[in-house]
Amino acid sequence: MSQTDSKMEVNPDLVRERAKCNFNTLELTHIIDGGEENTLQRKKIENIALNSGAWKDTVGEEHMSHKEKYENSVRKSVIYGSIMKNELAELSGLEEFGANFLAVRRTGNAFFKEVTPVFQHFGQFIPTILGQCTPEQQSYWLPRALDMNILGTYAQTELGHGTFIRGLETTATYDPETEEFVLHSPTLSSYKWWAGGLGKTVNYCIVIAQLYTKGECHGTHLFIVQVRDEETHMPLPGIKVGEIGPKMGYNTGDNGFLGFDKHRIPREHLMMKHAQVLKDGTYVKVARHGKLSYGTMVFIRVVLVSDAAFYLSKACTIAVRYSAIRRQSKPRPDEIEAQILDYATQQHKLFIAIATAHALQFCSKWLWQSYTALLAQMKGGNTDSLPELHALSSGMKAISASDSAQLIEQCRLACGGHGYMMASGIPHLYTYVTATRTFEGDYTVLMLQTARFLVKAYKQAEASQPLTPTVSYLAHAFSGSKATWDSRPDGIIRSFQAVAAGKIAASVRNIRKRLQAGLSEIDAWELSTIQLVAAAEAHCRAVIADTYRKEIVRLTANSSPNVKVVMDQLTTLYLYYWALEKTGDLLIYTSVSEMDLVDLQEAYEELLQKIRPNAVGLVDAFDLRDEILHSTLGSYDGRVYERLMEEALKSPMNKEPVNEAHFKYIKPFMLKGKL
Amino acid sequence: MSQTDSKMEVNPDLVRERAKCNFNTLELTHIIDGGEENTLQRKKIENIALNSGAWKDTVGEEHMSHKEKYENSVRKSVIYGSIMKNELAELSGLEEFGANFLAVRRTGNAFFKEVTPVFQHFGQFIPTILGQCTPEQQSYWLPRALDMNILGTYAQTELGHGTFIRGLETTATYDPETEEFVLHSPTLSSYKWWAGGLGKTVNYCIVIAQLYTKGECHGTHLFIVQVRDEETHMPLPGIKVGEIGPKMGYNTGDNGFLGFDKHRIPREHLMMKHAQVLKDGTYVKVARHGKLSYGTMVFIRVVLVSDAAFYLSKACTIAVRYSAIRRQSKPRPDEIEAQILDYATQQHKLFIAIATAHALQFCSKWLWQSYTALLAQMKGGNTDSLPELHALSSGMKAISASDSAQLIEQCRLACGGHGYMMASGIPHLYTYVTATRTFEGDYTVLMLQTARFLVKAYKQAEASQPLTPTVSYLAHAFSGSKATWDSRPDGIIRSFQAVAAGKIAASVRNIRKRLQAGLSEIDAWELSTIQLVAAAEAHCRAVIADTYRKEIVRLTANSSPNVKVVMDQLTTLYLYYWALEKTGDLLIYTSVSEMDLVDLQEAYEELLQKIRPNAVGLVDAFDLRDEILHSTLGSYDGRVYERLMEEALKSPMNKEPVNEAHFKYIKPFMLKGKL
Repeated sequence: MSQTDSKMEVNPDLVRERAKCNFNTLELTHIIDGGEENTLQRKKIENIALNSGAWKDTVGEEHMSHKEKYENSVRKSVIYGSIMKNELAELSGLEEFGANFLAVRRTGNAFFKEVTPVFQHFGQFIPTILGQCTPEQQSYWLPRALDMNILGTYAQTELGHGTFIRGLETTATYDPETEEFVLHSPTLSSYKWWAGGLGKTVNYCIVIAQLYTKGECHGTHLFIVQVRDEETHMPLPGIKVGEIGPKMGYNTGDNGFLGFDKHRIPREHLMMKHAQVLKDGTYVKVARHGKLSYGTMVFIRVVLVSDAAFYLSKACTIAVRYSAIRRQSKPRPDEIEAQILDYATQQHKLFIAIATAHALQFCSKWLWQSYTALLAQMKGGNTDSLPELHALSSGMKAISASDSAQLIEQCRLACGGHGYMMASGIPHLYTYVTATRTFEGDYTVLMLQTARFLVKAYKQAEASQPLTPTVSYLAHAFSGSKATWDSRPDGIIRSFQAVAAGKIAASVRNIRKRLQAGLSEIDAWELSTIQLVAAAEAHCRAVIADTYRKEIVRLTANSSPNVKVVMDQLTTLYLYYWALEKTGDLLIYTSVSEMDLVDLQEAYEELLQKIRPNAVGLVDAFDLRDEILHSTLGSYDGRVYERLMEEALKSPMNKEPVNEAHFKYIKPFMLKGKL
Repeated sequence: MSQTDSKMEVNPDLVRERAKCNFNTLELTHIIDGGEENTLQRKKIENIALNSGAWKDTVGEEHMSHKEKYENSVRKSVIYGSIMKNELAELSGLEEFGANFLAVRRTGNAFFKEVTPVFQHFGQFIPTILGQCTPEQQSYWLPRALDMNILGTYAQTELGHGTFIRGLETTATYDPETEEFVLHSPTLSSYKWWAGGLGKTVNYCIVIAQLYTKGECHGTHLFIVQVRDEETHMPLPGIKVGEIGPKMGYNTGDNGFLGFDKHRIPREHLMMKHAQVLKDGTYVKVARHGKLSYGTMVFIRVVLVSDAAFYLSKACTIAVRYSAIRRQSKPRPDEIEAQILDYATQQHKLFIAIATAHALQFCSKWLWQSYTALLAQMKGGNTDSLPELHALSSGMKAISASDSAQLIEQCRLACGGHGYMMASGIPHLYTYVTATRTFEGDYTVLMLQTARFLVKAYKQAEASQPLTPTVSYLAHAFSGSKATWDSRPDGIIRSFQAVAAGKIAASVRNIRKRLQAGLSEIDAWELSTIQLVAAAEAHCRAVIADTYRKEIVRLTANSSPNVKVVMDQLTTLYLYYWALEKTGDLLIYTSVSEMDLVDLQEAYEELLQKIRPNAVGLVDAFDLRDEILHSTLGSYDGRVYERLMEEALKSPMNKEPVNEAHFKYIKPFMLKGKL
């Protein structure tokens, strides 16, 4: 049911909450969408994609077997693909990471809570052809891929090898006799593992393998490999392919494994934009692609920051609406039970989640702008900003996945037992986001990449060299005195920067101490990694806080007063929350006093009360249609208990009054009495 | 495969790790089990229950539909029930929370990763008959329940009502004409919701309802209600019963809903130990049961602390063994890839999990001893210790569920992508433990119960009244000066107590300040709840740290030197870890200096290195058989990649080379080309 349906019966508690909201939620929606025009375009897309109801399952996916989940997801992929290609074709610019891209991701979420088996075809197969093939190769592969005459995916990770790409074991050995590459999986641990859609769906796959020619290894390269027959869909000889089995989430996608038994592919299937192997086996490096290939990686990370924000906004919407409806305990005997949203502890759990959803949303847009600016610079040959953006996107991806997952769980737990029901819609959000903490760069690995950049920047600051914007605060790291505490928002941001600077400095001191003690560079770094991760976290939090605040000030410059106030309250809440989480750091690296912290705690608690009346309005402003929320607890109309019961009655378990297991197993057991 | 199988081929990395371990793991196993005799008894039980392989599924449960999971679980319940009644019958004392009880819980875990549909029959139906029925009633119900002529469960929670029992809506109105109670569900929100086994399995149910007689409500009482026909298993007229649908976990159990349409039951089905309704409708209170009924609640909470420890020990075992096998990155070009267990960041994630598993394990045993001591006192009419034990078991249950769940996820994330596979065995551990954070008392609600006890104790301390043991530290809360920092273990424990005392004092100050500002008691308390929860947490952490340390000192008094050393290292690690997590609190409430914290961080990192060589030995000492672990990553032999592939090949998805969805959906879509 859409929010605009005037005949809708809405839970009276929600009606009251909405009447109480003192700002125009639509105005905030426009800010979140990046302007009224974007909102209108998004709604248009949502109407086209969702109004037909084609996203619906006849039986809830959670009731299905692993195999049925896959088959149902393929069924819907074809329906959704058809809508994309037909009804949505008129709308241009879908390929851009703009309003349309985000709107399509949202509607995709109505069809697939986590993923479709063809996601990698569009998300990695086609982009990699664009990025890694010669124009000649592109003209061969691209039309077939775009028309879906072939379906592909991308296989990098192996059973025994993840992050460390150089450790990949799959080999591609050139045979000049036949002008073919021989792909081989020398060990079990070299089997490709994880690629989405690889299990049963695709017939082509981009494979990363160690390239050997003329007896020499040239490192990892990309190959386009046909894995299944285009007619029969049977795996080709020399190919072992299958599905890897159930996961914590993503079970609507068929992640697969792939092994080669001396499987031959034509020489031309090496993706040759950056390196070629000539017919005689001569290896020719065409262009260095080191820095350029960062581009795609940065892009994916920006998308993941945006995902973290989006999934968290769903969790907030569900938990806040439910908390306005759910009543528990009578503080006063003469009153009815209180809305749980009125409890300070509940506000403490939920309002930071709303603020964080905003913070990550605006950070992802800002990162996206930095990324497009960088692309423009790189076209002009200037790659100066790349290291900073790479470090930033690594750290932001890591911390946004981590914070979002943790807060989604906090929202779920705030919904009590009902949050544990799959029908609440929250468990899926967690299983999705927690996966993004690992894939495309594990949290700790990414944090250490950010830390490496920070240590370098610190040394530049030490040598009074110029610093890039996000680390410019390091210039103040050498004053010798603690940063002055100032409880106004900008003051708190400066304190977070002082904490980051202090932690980076402490890490550098530790590394140097260990070097002086005679340890190698490698060991000195390794033994300091716990603190380096903490330093990188502090840096990322400072950047997020700063960006969130600045973006809100900028975006609400012309807003109506009440929107300005509530946005200011939320950014302030975010700053207070993290200051109170990090009192130890503040006491060490700033002049904050114990009394200041007592005042801060009090100010934080007052802020919760101020935000309370607008809470439902704030989540309404995310404007998430019920079809996208998939939640009995969070729907716009608040028919919580009715929906829970309706869902339960749909259970195949309830289609028959007596389950056959009773007569098959229990009854004979009971009859035996004492056995 | 059992650890004692001498023909087992073990991963060479694990062989090396085990050779490197410098203490006798069996000696530690005995300590964990509470003595060599218990270990032998446990192994005997495990051999009987598991060696036949009856726990095995032909198809992995994760592949099944929701309904199939239930049916498969019923199938295994009957097998396991038969083993319990026959093969295990010779072993006495199974009902006790001693070695046998725990051993049976462990073997149950081999059959059911989370729960069996008949769990509530044994866990709540029978115990409640014992606790709430008159001897006459018991003689009628108990034999039938014990012989499983009837199967029952316990239904308290309603769709709209959880924690606040007084808010329950189901009514039981006495009709003296027919000498029956009329059970009724006046609203949708009054439907019973959640009871385990209620959906499809049981035919009887204990129902909690508001008792009305002679026009007066006497509050909630318990009734035994038949819900299904004993022959046909059909729901009785006037009863609406069904299954509530898929949950985040526990899907092998059929949680159910139950509604009444003026359903009549005999007067005698009121459980009459504490109150009766005479034939004419006169209500007679037989005995006050307030304090006594705490007993069962405390018991369940003690079991849940033990569960938190057990599930966490499984997660540690899996993650540590896998981290010894998994290799990633070459710090040095000339060496092979490093075991990820060698990374400081990995040790930082995992060793605290091992220490916490021990801490919770020993705390649960200590709580159990306190509980049995209390029961003995109560028989003598002395209930003095009850409030303390109630507060303690509330807080310990809450914090152990929370810490265990968080650390299980930390273990899972430390296993990278493979941790996300259901076959890793870790996702199930999380979905089990995270549920225990909510049921039997939500985290926040329990923490506030503990806080209420602490505030009372604080006021007693203020008035120089005697204090019960776990809060005796409050006597030092009025010295006016900060606690002296001392980095030795006992000193850190005193600091944790000082932090708890400081936070309780600050909460009391806040409540009083709000009272002085004219707020009511209720509002002053409510507005202080965020800080009260934090104070209760600090108290529980201090108690756990103190108990863990003391129990280890006591239990290793006669141990061999190396066991003593490694146990001392782990308790110290636990103290350092939490001190470093709470630097803000220490800086506020103790005399710790910034330099002290730098030293502490260094000492912590050194400790990780010291524990590293014994890590695999430490998890081996949990002595968790592979059948109980259910993990491709954590098996004793370390055949990680082989098992992952073997599991994948068992997938029903891989039974056919081409899935029918290809021809049904994808092929027609592809043929349409551009559509």
